[in-house]
Amino acid sequence: MIFNQNEKLVMIGDSITDTERKRPHGEGRNDSTGKGYVSVVHALFHTVYPELKLRVINMGTSGNNVRNLKERWQTDVTDLQPDWVSILIGINDVWRQYDQPTIPESHVYIEEYRQTLDELVKLTLPSVKGVFLMTPFYLEPNEHDPMRQTMDAYGKVVKEIAEANQTYFIDIQAAFQPILEHIYPATLAWDRVHPNLVGHMAIARAFVKAAGFDWNK
Amino acid sequence: MIFNQNEKLVMIGDSITDTERKRPHGEGRNDSTGKGYVSVVHALFHTVYPELKLRVINMGTSGNNVRNLKERWQTDVTDLQPDWVSILIGINDVWRQYDQPTIPESHVYIEEYRQTLDELVKLTLPSVKGVFLMTPFYLEPNEHDPMRQTMDAYGKVVKEIAEANQTYFIDIQAAFQPILEHIYPATLAWDRVHPNLVGHMAIARAFVKAAGFDWNK
Amino acid sequence: MIFNQNEKLVMIGDSITDTERKRPHGEGRNDSTGKGYVSVVHALFHTVYPELKLRVINMGTSGNNVRNLKERWQTDVTDLQPDWVSILIGINDVWRQYDQPTIPESHVYIEEYRQTLDELVKLTLPSVKGVFLMTPFYLEPNEHDPMRQTMDAYGKVVKEIAEANQTYFIDIQAAFQPILEHIYPATLAWDRVHPNLVGHMAIARAFVKAAGFDWNK
Amino acid sequence: MIFNQNEKLVMIGDSITDTERKRPHGEGRNDSTGKGYVSVVHALFHTVYPELKLRVINMGTSGNNVRNLKERWQTDVTDLQPDWVSILIGINDVWRQYDQPTIPESHVYIEEYRQTLDELVKLTLPSVKGVFLMTPFYLEPNEHDPMRQTMDAYGKVVKEIAEANQTYFIDIQAAFQPILEHIYPATLAWDRVHPNLVGHMAIARAFVKAAGFDWNK
Amino acid sequence: MIFNQNEKLVMIGDSITDTERKRPHGEGRNDSTGKGYVSVVHALFHTVYPELKLRVINMGTSGNNVRNLKERWQTDVTDLQPDWVSILIGINDVWRQYDQPTIPESHVYIEEYRQTLDELVKLTLPSVKGVFLMTPFYLEPNEHDPMRQTMDAYGKVVKEIAEANQTYFIDIQAAFQPILEHIYPATLAWDRVHPNLVGHMAIARAFVKAAGFDWNK
Amino acid sequence: MIFNQNEKLVMIGDSITDTERKRPHGEGRNDSTGKGYVSVVHALFHTVYPELKLRVINMGTSGNNVRNLKERWQTDVTDLQPDWVSILIGINDVWRQYDQPTIPESHVYIEEYRQTLDELVKLTLPSVKGVFLMTPFYLEPNEHDPMRQTMDAYGKVVKEIAEANQTYFIDIQAAFQPILEHIYPATLAWDRVHPNLVGHMAIARAFVKAAGFDWNK
Amino acid sequence: MIFNQNEKLVMIGDSITDTERKRPHGEGRNDSTGKGYVSVVHALFHTVYPELKLRVINMGTSGNNVRNLKERWQTDVTDLQPDWVSILIGINDVWRQYDQPTIPESHVYIEEYRQTLDELVKLTLPSVKGVFLMTPFYLEPNEHDPMRQTMDAYGKVVKEIAEANQTYFIDIQAAFQPILEHIYPATLAWDRVHPNLVGHMAIARAFVKAAGFDWNK
Amino acid sequence: MIFNQNEKLVMIGDSITDTERKRPHGEGRNDSTGKGYVSVVHALFHTVYPELKLRVINMGTSGNNVRNLKERWQTDVTDLQPDWVSILIGINDVWRQYDQPTIPESHVYIEEYRQTLDELVKLTLPSVKGVFLMTPFYLEPNEHDPMRQTMDAYGKVVKEIAEANQTYFIDIQAAFQPILEHIYPATLAWDRVHPNLVGHMAIARAFVKAAGFDWNK
Repeated sequence: MIFNQNEKLVMIGDSITDTERKRPHGEGRNDSTGKGYVSVVHALFHTVYPELKLRVINMGTSGNNVRNLKERWQTDVTDLQPDWVSILIGINDVWRQYDQPTIPESHVYIEEYRQTLDELVKLTLPSVKGVFLMTPFYLEPNEHDPMRQTMDAYGKVVKEIAEANQTYFIDIQAAFQPILEHIYPATLAWDRVHPNLVGHMAIARAFVKAAGFDWNK
Repeated sequence: MIFNQNEKLVMIGDSITDTERKRPHGEGRNDSTGKGYVSVVHALFHTVYPELKLRVINMGTSGNNVRNLKERWQTDVTDLQPDWVSILIGINDVWRQYDQPTIPESHVYIEEYRQTLDELVKLTLPSVKGVFLMTPFYLEPNEHDPMRQTMDAYGKVVKEIAEANQTYFIDIQAAFQPILEHIYPATLAWDRVHPNLVGHMAIARAFVKAAGFDWNK
Repeated sequence: MIFNQNEKLVMIGDSITDTERKRPHGEGRNDSTGKGYVSVVHALFHTVYPELKLRVINMGTSGNNVRNLKERWQTDVTDLQPDWVSILIGINDVWRQYDQPTIPESHVYIEEYRQTLDELVKLTLPSVKGVFLMTPFYLEPNEHDPMRQTMDAYGKVVKEIAEANQTYFIDIQAAFQPILEHIYPATLAWDRVHPNLVGHMAIARAFVKAAGFDWNK
Repeated sequence: MIFNQNEKLVMIGDSITDTERKRPHGEGRNDSTGKGYVSVVHALFHTVYPELKLRVINMGTSGNNVRNLKERWQTDVTDLQPDWVSILIGINDVWRQYDQPTIPESHVYIEEYRQTLDELVKLTLPSVKGVFLMTPFYLEPNEHDPMRQTMDAYGKVVKEIAEANQTYFIDIQAAFQPILEHIYPATLAWDRVHPNLVGHMAIARAFVKAAGFDWNK
Repeated sequence: MIFNQNEKLVMIGDSITDTERKRPHGEGRNDSTGKGYVSVVHALFHTVYPELKLRVINMGTSGNNVRNLKERWQTDVTDLQPDWVSILIGINDVWRQYDQPTIPESHVYIEEYRQTLDELVKLTLPSVKGVFLMTPFYLEPNEHDPMRQTMDAYGKVVKEIAEANQTYFIDIQAAFQPILEHIYPATLAWDRVHPNLVGHMAIARAFVKAAGFDWNK
Repeated sequence: MIFNQNEKLVMIGDSITDTERKRPHGEGRNDSTGKGYVSVVHALFHTVYPELKLRVINMGTSGNNVRNLKERWQTDVTDLQPDWVSILIGINDVWRQYDQPTIPESHVYIEEYRQTLDELVKLTLPSVKGVFLMTPFYLEPNEHDPMRQTMDAYGKVVKEIAEANQTYFIDIQAAFQPILEHIYPATLAWDRVHPNLVGHMAIARAFVKAAGFDWNK
Repeated sequence: MIFNQNEKLVMIGDSITDTERKRPHGEGRNDSTGKGYVSVVHALFHTVYPELKLRVINMGTSGNNVRNLKERWQTDVTDLQPDWVSILIGINDVWRQYDQPTIPESHVYIEEYRQTLDELVKLTLPSVKGVFLMTPFYLEPNEHDPMRQTMDAYGKVVKEIAEANQTYFIDIQAAFQPILEHIYPATLAWDRVHPNLVGHMAIARAFVKAAGFDWNK
Repeated sequence: MIFNQNEKLVMIGDSITDTERKRPHGEGRNDSTGKGYVSVVHALFHTVYPELKLRVINMGTSGNNVRNLKERWQTDVTDLQPDWVSILIGINDVWRQYDQPTIPESHVYIEEYRQTLDELVKLTLPSVKGVFLMTPFYLEPNEHDPMRQTMDAYGKVVKEIAEANQTYFIDIQAAFQPILEHIYPATLAWDRVHPNLVGHMAIARAFVKAAGFDWNK
């Protein structure tokens, strides 16, 4: 696995990340890392690699878009001096365009998204060992659905930023593809956005695979 | 994996299993399978094997000992007509001897434990494809601790019943061994009994390994 | 309008109808008729036709399918001696097939749906002035979506029963069609099933149109 | 209808408007526009004219009189840069004279009411496409009742301001007149002030009529 | 005063009497006699005549009409073996005709009211020292208001029953007359029915005057 | 009665006065004047003298001693510009000496009590029509009880201040005397300090008598 | 100490005993034995004599008098097969005569008290090793207070029953005597009945002294 | 006993001390001193030595380590001007090293512990009559357990500081030794840290013994 003993991983994002994590920092006993993929990642690491004593900190905040991440990046990422940072953002940037179409100030359009995310990555890379960029996703199997199309476009931006900055890239939408072939969206997520534990397991599995995790170690 | 499409697995036990599952049957949307190893097993199955559409039902009840399982076996296991049954029981049978030593009517001593568990297994085997017996456990690394010694004795009974009835056997205490070498009990479980998600992941991982689960499928 | 003074209309269905109505009978002061289309229908009638003093009773029950309606038809419809009855059922009959695919006992397949609904209509018609049958609906604009396809099939059944029994027929799915051309589903309903007041207004408007309601009276 | 695509309507007032709207701005998903006439207006617009994508913002505050409106006019109206503004104020200005007769500092007498409302209208007209003035009302059919008489006098002031400033004028008291001929006040409003949904429908219907709304479009 | 030492007075009625009294019997410490006129009567008696040690029991039940009183008369009056009984009933009998006009089964019309009340009085008189009949009331000063007119008609029935049975008669509507000349109804009662403490004081004062109470004793 | 139309009476004190009054000022609808003697005084005035439209404001604060009164006198009395002021203070000054004997900073000894109360009276008299001084009291009939003796000493101070400043004086302890001859303290007040409504009626009756109130007017 | 290893002591009584104990039996972890003298007795025994493993069961029920004890004696004492029983009853038997003087059915007069308590003792003695009778008490130092006098009379009855039946006798009133010489009742008990932990310590100390407890063991 | 009349004892520490004490100062009526050993100490003193009128103030704060004590020493100890101070700190300093091993900023290692505690003692001694130092403890009978070993090392530091500064020293770990020989840890404390009342009694007994308390006085 790419992580070494005692290293610190900060995972930031929106409600998919947050999942009722502890404030101000999502680490420690009980449900401090929340009830979603971050807590699954933490559990997988400490179950299979207990000797690494990895430090996983959930810094997700429900409702956030990339603009909000930028506002709190100093206190919520930089000040924590992480070794690794993962980012899963963009769902609200897109969703508000579809569930609050009359309120444009709640939308983050694609160019602002690209510039802001790129800025955060460039700001962070020099002081960490690695950054993980995860695509925003939408549990809608119909690729012609307008919101799915927009989400895919934002996901493509993430990929481009990852490539341009040579960071780790994880395609979460793609990770859901084989599941959506067999399971209808309503089984996975009430609103096609907030998954149950099956969905969080899929995100966590995609993440730890990218980190070289070995289940059978 | 040993499970086939649409098969039904009932997982029964005490609070380690229960974890606030839905009543009367722990299956369905959201947290219906609880917040512990059953929900992790369910998530692993549906993430990696979505095409199997396995049915996982959590029938754990907090505070139960094997005597209680027997009382509700007809309605809570037999009537559900499962293809597979897993049993994780014995912690309360032992614990009450140590945290309520003056109240003997709350204790289940080892012979009653052996006879009752054996009876339930024999009653069930003819109508199912397989039974999984998991050992009760105690997150106490000191093998000379009195309660750990008793728990190990009960675990040995489980192993003997599994062998005598040729069922699947899963040594949960052993699964925790490598973790306890690196992590102090207080990190895993406030009371050395109820684990956090790291511990539930360890139980789930031991279970799915026994079922031939392939993480990298 | 087809209703006469002091006539009694019972509106029965699932959570779309229920909307936190009063128990045991959804009529009276404040929010007794719930917070959905029934309360809008009631408000439209009493605002525009106050002289008719119509009695509108909400008998919806969240989670119901047509099988549940049959179980409570005697107490919840027949015993109330209504002049008119409206039925909006079928969403859960279909939805459970998609959000709980592994739990077949929660599904009501199309033939049972057809026979049961038809039975209720035939049972009721002799003692009332008219029955209104509304189609179940799904706020999914993609007609190739599997659940939308199933819902449309159930809607077709409703139409056939209405024609066979010569009752009033209201195509709610069709009533949402022009709205879905301009508004993305997420704006109307968190889960594409439970609409906000815009959606309830659309249902109510379709209903009162069928009853000959004149907004400009 | 007089509204064009994407235009923004701010509706301000007291508890009749507020109805538990979202803070700080009463717009968005679910019950953001409250549970009263504003949410009905919003629902009517989006059901019948979905292509207009009108933005309706509820800025009512329970307990307010015209003096309070003035205090928050800058932040709660002007800063929102509306295209249209509706005002329904005056009920508390009058009511406090009758339910708290010994506390004169809670009363707003008619000259202060006239001057303040006129000032707000004149301040607002230059930057919007139109202002709607609605009369305060009292669900008391007896025109000789003292509080009804005072309310009517305030309503007359609203009419005079509307005419002097050539704004839209909506006589809510008059809209209730045909309903009060058939329905006793206690059916409509516990306290003759806060109507149930029937009353809110009547207000909404009067408002949308003034805006050229066509139910049968 | 007409009461003697240790005598027991049962006061029965609807929500005006109930006022959150203790169950099953409204007597004892703290707020056992509720927060309305019964507790004021009790306080007046024990403050001014502490040596009498009178026993006052509140048996009011919110929402009751005379039909409900009859149903519980045996357990709630007769079984308590009172020396004196006071009855204040009829408001709901009338009110439901005005606030739920479409639900006739909730109405108690004047002939049923007369017969039932008369029956209760005749049933009770032989075993007690006296019965007090209080008129139902409506805090509406306009005597031409329809509900006030109906209420006055019911009050007249009470007077006729009192005279025919030679019981104590207390005209509560008349007791409010001088107050309503100076105080607008909204100051006294949110809904013109449930008075604040001023109104309860007026009822209590009328009652104790009828009992020969001397404030200056 | 000594009060004239529209005059304002501020009643200040400790928890005996407070009784859950409204904040910041204890006046207005419902229970704004609390649930104790102030609300009874208010009710008596408005029931018997509705034409006076007296304004009664409860400014009691639970736990207060005379030192606390002084701290808030400017905002809670002077700023309200009352016509009349009543003061009932001293119970906590004494009680803390008996229920928290080891915490001397919570005690107010008799000389500080005398000086502070006298200062408040002298400060207030010039700007009002009259001040009412009520004695603190203790519902302990045994005059040799230590706390009763201390309370009587403080009551004597109140009397001396009243005489020196020629204000109205009301001996509440004396008003309870005839009641305590017939009623054991536990019936009146759980802790011999906080009376039930019987006790509050006794305080109110003593107060209104001093104000020339005529019950039979 | 008079107790031997593993013996079971049932302590029964009213709210002084109950103190929010666990139901149905007041033993086990945490606050199962309540928050009063029973939990202190239990703590003293297990701190100083851990080797005895004594079983202490709190069977107190708030509000009980001796009549209530008799009603539940079979299930709450006899069925538990105790080795020792302690009884602390009589406070409510007396108190109700003073705080609810007008409700005689809540009083238990001294002869019924004597006969019932004697009957319970005689019924129990043959099957246990010993019975402890504790006097009811009243934290009122004035021996001429009427309720204190009655309580002392009931305490004398307890002493007489103890002597006649040769059981253990503990004079709780006497145990409080030296404390009341230095501490005013209000410091010990809000209502002179329910003591704080100081009072419960005094009861527990008197009890364990009677049982031969040695603090310095 | 070493304490004299009216002296003030401040007991400071972590959650073992806090036990839901009153804020800002843990003294006064009811549960002001919390529910742990401080309240037991207070109860023992006032039951057996009521004439001393000792003042016991609980200043424990849950979660505190010695670093936190230092931060609040001025306001929470010095400003209170105590005659005596007791300190029970160090459990969290050690525990965080074992239950949050990956979060080093929550650990207080032994040298910082020693220096800080020594500093607080030296700062305090000149102005008080005596300081009591209690060892932190861990209810783990296995002396080879890593956390128990660390705790013992911290306890040894406490002893060294006590000796160097000639303060009172109380070995709480030793006080639990004879109890742990007979009672399994799970009976005493769910998490081997927070004891039930048995454990608090043991701490209190050790403390008062050090103060020369005589149970049989």
